Amino acid sequence: MDRYAFGVDVGGTTVKMGFFTAEGELLGKWEIPTDISEYGVHIIPDIAQEIREKLAASGLSSEDVIGVGLGVPGPVDADGNILHCVNLGWGTFNLEAAMTRATGIPCKAGNDADVAALGEIYKGSASKYRTVVLLTLGTGVGGGIIIDGRILPGTFGAAGEIGHMNMKEDETDFCGCGHQGCLEQYASASGIVRMARLNMARTDVDTVLRQCKSVTSKDIFDAARDGDEFSRDLVEEVCKTLGLACARISTVVDPEAYIFGGGMSKAGNIITNTVEKYYNRYAFHIGAKFLLAKLGNDAGIWGAVKLVFDSF
Amino acid sequence: MDRYAFGVDVGGTTVKMGFFTAEGELLGKWEIPTDISEYGVHIIPDIAQEIREKLAASGLSSEDVIGVGLGVPGPVDADGNILHCVNLGWGTFNLEAAMTRATGIPCKAGNDADVAALGEIYKGSASKYRTVVLLTLGTGVGGGIIIDGRILPGTFGAAGEIGHMNMKEDETDFCGCGHQGCLEQYASASGIVRMARLNMARTDVDTVLRQCKSVTSKDIFDAARDGDEFSRDLVEEVCKTLGLACARISTVVDPEAYIFGGGMSKAGNIITNTVEKYYNRYAFHIGAKFLLAKLGNDAGIWGAVKLVFDSF
Repeated sequence: MDRYAFGVDVGGTTVKMGFFTAEGELLGKWEIPTDISEYGVHIIPDIAQEIREKLAASGLSSEDVIGVGLGVPGPVDADGNILHCVNLGWGTFNLEAAMTRATGIPCKAGNDADVAALGEIYKGSASKYRTVVLLTLGTGVGGGIIIDGRILPGTFGAAGEIGHMNMKEDETDFCGCGHQGCLEQYASASGIVRMARLNMARTDVDTVLRQCKSVTSKDIFDAARDGDEFSRDLVEEVCKTLGLACARISTVVDPEAYIFGGGMSKAGNIITNTVEKYYNRYAFHIGAKFLLAKLGNDAGIWGAVKLVFDSF
Repeated sequence: MDRYAFGVDVGGTTVKMGFFTAEGELLGKWEIPTDISEYGVHIIPDIAQEIREKLAASGLSSEDVIGVGLGVPGPVDADGNILHCVNLGWGTFNLEAAMTRATGIPCKAGNDADVAALGEIYKGSASKYRTVVLLTLGTGVGGGIIIDGRILPGTFGAAGEIGHMNMKEDETDFCGCGHQGCLEQYASASGIVRMARLNMARTDVDTVLRQCKSVTSKDIFDAARDGDEFSRDLVEEVCKTLGLACARISTVVDPEAYIFGGGMSKAGNIITNTVEKYYNRYAFHIGAKFLLAKLGNDAGIWGAVKLVFDSF
């Protein structure tokens, strides 16, 4: 009997769903809006409904499904407990048990950045590696740590919260987490825009960015590529911060490779090359590879289904 | 038939040896000098000779031994390769294979700080925990990372090299590793003495330390306890640096507990309490426990024999 699996990536705006064979072939993928109203109480029933409909349309039942893998934007511990997930309105409960109750199918859940990292190891740019750190440079900086092919969840589900590594003790601005000096205040897509604004306000140096109505991280990387000195300096500064953060990470877990994903990583090799340059300045032992993520928005569903294959 | 195991902790000055039952009862322990002459070529034969003599004296043969566990002061990868060990004069070779050839007994090797951390989980202050970070505050700062009860060796044997985490980008003094701004330049027994000397030279503030012929870390902690303001400020500063380093480590592996060992940790709870205070200031998620190591110089032999029990 053929068997199947679902890989589900729950974001703050959309839920990405993938339907796979037991051999890991992607049969179909689609999205639904994330309904975060009423503290996210509809999210699990909505996903369960999609699964039921997909199975009915395929003439299958829940017994034909190995499991449902879930990536969510918050800390998940090794037992499947979600420990507050502000983006979805969720508090603390056992996510795996709740999804299994809703679908009658075994469920394995993980933090979205961890799950995306697993996806990149399974089918993406890290497929040659077993121990990697993924950094997603988006609105924040997400981090996923894979040790010997498995997600490291951490005691409080907070392993890989690299975006909140303190990089600057005397920072006066606050991070969304309430601390000051977090990596994502400098090195996310929002962070680099924040830095550009600060540097423009602080000086009267000439830069094409002053002509942008609302500067984006793409504007900054484009301008740097076109020779705008202000933007080039800023890219160097941000990549230096990332290189220093990676050097610190390596003194802890010493991975084979760092993978950069998220919107800002679309700037391409300028990021990996510049981060590696500064990494080599700060690292105790050089040798880790610096790569761009390959799966883009699909990393989550691939990693989520890999969770299923690794768990059931 | 009763079976036995050896736990061996190789230091730069002495080799500590433990002889254990298969049930983990310590039957005897002793030390031999570490002969680092001729690039450490005698170390393995010397240990093998001790093992043969102990077995002969007990009326046993190598077949009665499950294995030899080894902790060494350098990076060891997951395959048992030592990757340069400057303190012993060693280059790069397979340590496990070499010890097995010399003894006819299976061997499992690890970095000494990792092995000590395993010892503290097995029989020491971390016996309630499965995921811990050990920091040995001695001449340098050693680090051992245990994830779910197993040593994390890292890709290049450099996981847990916390002593070389960059803490200060504008440091002008050099660390023994060739970099500038490493944690152990501030927060080891030597580091705190270095800081005391610098602060005394930089100011003319009154402190009892000026009466010491050669300041030690014990002098500094004793003076702090006796109300010497200069020493109290320095202890705060050093523990703040350690607290910040631990907060950074937690964004990577999120352990249940931090264990402090090594000479400087003899100062006691003033270290764990003060480090925890600053950790709580910088950490993304608080909750990790801060504990003192319990096994002292025996952590290595206990961890080394645990390596045997986990491996063979």
